[in-house]
Amino acid sequence: MVYFDAASGAPLHPVARQALVASLDEGWADPARLYKEGRRARLLLDAAREAAAEAVGCRADELTFTASGTRAVHTGIAGALAGRRRVGDHLIVSAVEHSSVLHSAEAHEAAGGSVTRVPVDRGGRADAASYAGALRADTALACLQSANHEVGTEQPVAEAAEVCRAAGVPLLVDAAQSLGWGPVAGDWSLLTASAHKWGGPPGVGLLAVRKGVRFAVRGPADERESGRAAGFENIPAIVAAAASLRAVRAEAAAQAVRLRELTELIRARVPELVPDVEVVGDPVRRLPGIVTFSCLYVDGEALLHELDREGFAVSSGSSCTSGTLTPSHVLRAMGVLSEGNVRVSLPAGTSAPDVERFLAVLPGAVAGVREKLGAPAPRAAVRRAELVLDALGKRCPVPVIELAKVIGEVPVGGTVRVLADDAAARLDIPAWCEMRGQEYVGEEPADEGAAYVVRRLS
Amino acid sequence: MVYFDAASGAPLHPVARQALVASLDEGWADPARLYKEGRRARLLLDAAREAAAEAVGCRADELTFTASGTRAVHTGIAGALAGRRRVGDHLIVSAVEHSSVLHSAEAHEAAGGSVTRVPVDRGGRADAASYAGALRADTALACLQSANHEVGTEQPVAEAAEVCRAAGVPLLVDAAQSLGWGPVAGDWSLLTASAHKWGGPPGVGLLAVRKGVRFAVRGPADERESGRAAGFENIPAIVAAAASLRAVRAEAAAQAVRLRELTELIRARVPELVPDVEVVGDPVRRLPGIVTFSCLYVDGEALLHELDREGFAVSSGSSCTSGTLTPSHVLRAMGVLSEGNVRVSLPAGTSAPDVERFLAVLPGAVAGVREKLGAPAPRAAVRRAELVLDALGKRCPVPVIELAKVIGEVPVGGTVRVLADDAAARLDIPAWCEMRGQEYVGEEPADEGAAYVVRRLS
Repeated sequence: MVYFDAASGAPLHPVARQALVASLDEGWADPARLYKEGRRARLLLDAAREAAAEAVGCRADELTFTASGTRAVHTGIAGALAGRRRVGDHLIVSAVEHSSVLHSAEAHEAAGGSVTRVPVDRGGRADAASYAGALRADTALACLQSANHEVGTEQPVAEAAEVCRAAGVPLLVDAAQSLGWGPVAGDWSLLTASAHKWGGPPGVGLLAVRKGVRFAVRGPADERESGRAAGFENIPAIVAAAASLRAVRAEAAAQAVRLRELTELIRARVPELVPDVEVVGDPVRRLPGIVTFSCLYVDGEALLHELDREGFAVSSGSSCTSGTLTPSHVLRAMGVLSEGNVRVSLPAGTSAPDVERFLAVLPGAVAGVREKLGAPAPRAAVRRAELVLDALGKRCPVPVIELAKVIGEVPVGGTVRVLADDAAARLDIPAWCEMRGQEYVGEEPADEGAAYVVRRLS
Repeated sequence: MVYFDAASGAPLHPVARQALVASLDEGWADPARLYKEGRRARLLLDAAREAAAEAVGCRADELTFTASGTRAVHTGIAGALAGRRRVGDHLIVSAVEHSSVLHSAEAHEAAGGSVTRVPVDRGGRADAASYAGALRADTALACLQSANHEVGTEQPVAEAAEVCRAAGVPLLVDAAQSLGWGPVAGDWSLLTASAHKWGGPPGVGLLAVRKGVRFAVRGPADERESGRAAGFENIPAIVAAAASLRAVRAEAAAQAVRLRELTELIRARVPELVPDVEVVGDPVRRLPGIVTFSCLYVDGEALLHELDREGFAVSSGSSCTSGTLTPSHVLRAMGVLSEGNVRVSLPAGTSAPDVERFLAVLPGAVAGVREKLGAPAPRAAVRRAELVLDALGKRCPVPVIELAKVIGEVPVGGTVRVLADDAAARLDIPAWCEMRGQEYVGEEPADEGAAYVVRRLS
């Protein structure tokens, strides 16, 4: 099995494994205790905090170990909002943050707070000027990821931190995808990360809160981790997290060059090998190991199964892979095709032959799924000036497949009115138009679902 | 080093270690993913849940893995209170619950809820009738530990569950100290536990919520663990927790017999070997491995250091060991002596020679601390009918030591008025009177601190 889903979670780094196993014997006792085992556990915890703080670029007493990256985000956002309650209850996030950030924003809204979601460009990148524009007198906190988890696009965090700092607003940076590659640039106020994303063990998140940032812990009191992470410290995992972060950093520059070459290859070759593909994400300002593309007329889940059968583990932000059938909020915010989406995220040490084999296998896998779904091939048809396509009850990617089949049936200048009730259609029909050089006229209300009007241009 | 602090955290059980190391290779991937590694991780997680649920005595779909026992308690209490918000906001806890429960209660009060703290007897045991008496029409939840963490006293959870069930109120049982010994009896509604207490790894708590119990998750949404434990699952640790729970249970009956013999020995011998000692906790209805005693005229932290130097790791609920200088809330609720407190909690496999050696070392350790503190020896004195002892500004155990020194200076029937401002005095002066057969007349207001009046009877 070739694992190309490092952005979900990296396999355990050998250094992490070694440190974890070693500290099972040394670090199991309660670091709050006064006897020898307790003092030894405390020393391990202190040393891990020093090492992790150095990698983050903060002071040891600014760094808390949490039970996961998600928990770090939840605690960081809630604590910063509570700490600045007197200023106001306005929160700024980008539209492409990780779900832990967006769910925190939803919880904040549900509790009466207000949220601005800053849009991104077609490459998935937010703009520091948009953050400046979103700042208000009652803004308590702004959040911006260091890089996007679905498409790899790097965000302008240093610039965003600068505009926030000028307004006296703290910026929380979710650095889950990038911390293994290097420290986050710029004058951020809070930072979160997750050890299993860089090859550390599960069960460890980082939350850094700069001195001077107002922060109020919410929920029941607890003495551990400066009151910011309730519960007994998981010292073996914390030691492994810190040790592996240091090890991964030492290898980062060399790995970045290797992985960037491999993802460049995928970016360049996929559109040559597979018809009707859109490679998404910023082509330049991106993480070394992530490349994402979407395949027209393809069901993402079916494609993942095909690739799994061929021995490749990849992920998908396609509407058809999640249990909820909602298209990926990231792809939606970018306005790109969401159907048949594949995210390839290479772990450190990925070999070129594995990538070559992936490229060799992909075209057949896509063609196989398309064939099963009955994707379009040209055919003669009666030409009417307007055609109504009833795709009600049909799920992504069927409405777009049907559209592609019938567009040739209207003359150039004629329109197809697609009736559809699948949420993904709103995103995928305009995206298809852009890819195929057809005009997306717009959406109109309909008795059921909505009508998406497309004008044939070629 | 002999480790006698299993109630704080047990050393990793060999089965836990083996399972943890093995599943680092098998269980690192995201169990929500569709590819082979993800499916394998999901299978491990499902199997661990089945095994743990069987040990708890609940259905697998009633059981959530959290990041710690503390987190299980926080989530369980908050969720049950939120789920029954329409019934009311009254919470019942015993006065001797773990701090995670009491801190949850304080957070609930701070948010406007009301809390009843059920008292315990001198053995640390709550009474089901007191729970019945505390129930109100607006009671949303009651909490009772299965056994106390400081003195080992077992609580009447089955009876409490029955009275709660009759009133339609859910009972949450914190089973952190007992789950390794066996399932919790009775018709409880929610149950929490912590793996590192039974020899599992740190980083895993259990939260069981019976079907039909109203439960509303608070905080940001998250899809993992039925929405009840946000963040990436720590599968290797979860697998190790479940495997070790099963292993510990298989050994429980035999270990209980062994450890009970050893703690019986300590209970019997300590008062013979050390003068002025009170063994606390229920002598019969108690956990096999815990025995707690308090030594008059002793600073608990100094005694812990002495014992550490002699190679024994024990814990203390004494006022003098915690950073906050507050006497243990458990000992306070029991009304027993808190000074010079020592909790001995034996891990599985403790050897009789180690216990014998502890008993050989203890008298000298206590005597050494007493000597440094200048504990009383009989002396002749002028007898006055009333004597005022100014112990203002003096901390535990100095006021009691001074009292013991001067009580002989008043005639039988005369009184000593102790002026003290240390919080522990309120507890320790009455406890000393009970131990020494003197009469505690009562507390009176004073310009500074309070006056504690003691009548000499013998």
